[in-house]
Amino acid sequence: MQLFIGNQNYSSWSLRAWLIFSQYNLDVEVVKLKLFTEDFYQTLEGITPTAKVPILVDDGITVWDSFAILEYVNERYLQGNAWPSDVLDRAKARAISAEMHSGFFELRNELPMNIRARRNVDLGDGALKDIARIDAIWAEQAELYPDGWLFGEWSIADAMYAPVALRFLTYGIELSEGAKAYQKKVLASDSLQQWLKDASFEKDIVEEDEAGEAV
Amino acid sequence: MQLFIGNQNYSSWSLRAWLIFSQYNLDVEVVKLKLFTEDFYQTLEGITPTAKVPILVDDGITVWDSFAILEYVNERYLQGNAWPSDVLDRAKARAISAEMHSGFFELRNELPMNIRARRNVDLGDGALKDIARIDAIWAEQAELYPDGWLFGEWSIADAMYAPVALRFLTYGIELSEGAKAYQKKVLASDSLQQWLKDASFEKDIVEEDEAGEAV
Repeated sequence: MQLFIGNQNYSSWSLRAWLIFSQYNLDVEVVKLKLFTEDFYQTLEGITPTAKVPILVDDGITVWDSFAILEYVNERYLQGNAWPSDVLDRAKARAISAEMHSGFFELRNELPMNIRARRNVDLGDGALKDIARIDAIWAEQAELYPDGWLFGEWSIADAMYAPVALRFLTYGIELSEGAKAYQKKVLASDSLQQWLKDASFEKDIVEEDEAGEAV
Repeated sequence: MQLFIGNQNYSSWSLRAWLIFSQYNLDVEVVKLKLFTEDFYQTLEGITPTAKVPILVDDGITVWDSFAILEYVNERYLQGNAWPSDVLDRAKARAISAEMHSGFFELRNELPMNIRARRNVDLGDGALKDIARIDAIWAEQAELYPDGWLFGEWSIADAMYAPVALRFLTYGIELSEGAKAYQKKVLASDSLQQWLKDASFEKDIVEEDEAGEAV
């Protein structure tokens, strides 16, 4: 099984897909490509129709899109255990994951993932609304599952929201108490720590993701 | 079970969720709300955190986002049969569905779903690229499954792409032969015909979705 990812400092979608392999100690060869370089496009050309990472290649099957990769791995290798077992939690986990997958545009545009940076940004109303919504989701789940992942045990929903924990750190976003506790849990986890370490060796700059003023 | 949807003339996300109930003859009360009216926001306020349709309310469980609704219904009421049973097809169906769920922005912006209209639009490069990508997906699947749904039997992937068949009709988009055959199949299906009939009784105009020049 091969997982193609982008620069770990920047690629939030890659992080989402990578996390499920890390959390469950699944055997996978991670192939890191430098985003938007010639090599990036040439490597992906023969593999995927979309020229985007992450891509999973497994046993003659190519899966593109992080959400599809998470579902595929969950179903094929985890007996569905990466979604909560409770039917209500499961529905909610799917809903907030889908919400992240198709939304939060202003957050993404104004607060690109950029792990090594610490920045100031002037946020628009849309981005502030996105932040408030995520704060509300995290705080609500922190009340239901104190000190836990979003639904107690780690789930795909945690993969979907992990990059946001890093964005909030980069741009110094203030959170409510419950949301802050969840952010801390994410950042302290073994998987995130491993990703951060790997990312710390990277030197390449991707201009498109360099928003804000250094602080 | 209650499914809250928007104006059928315009609401592409509502159509996606509605289709699974229609295709499988599932018992559901459809509640239609006029998009962006006071009543729309007031009704949704108590039900959902996102003020968007579609919303499914089932047995004390609220599911927002069309993709999450499709997965929920598939899992809870269809024993997973709304994804292809073949593992390779299943992975591909998930990937193209996720691709639609999180992408094709230019297509959405420049070609909003507007069933009753026939329009001319000047398309930008991004929208043209989106159209070419969808044409390629449809044509590839039409070769694998001539005269069939995208993966032979109807699946969630068909729900995800159904609104595009209508967009292409509204804006007179030319397709390759295989893609055109699939578009025809979608438009001729009983479910789509029912939706079109329901939509034809609507009179309300949603200005945001009135792109292009009448032809």
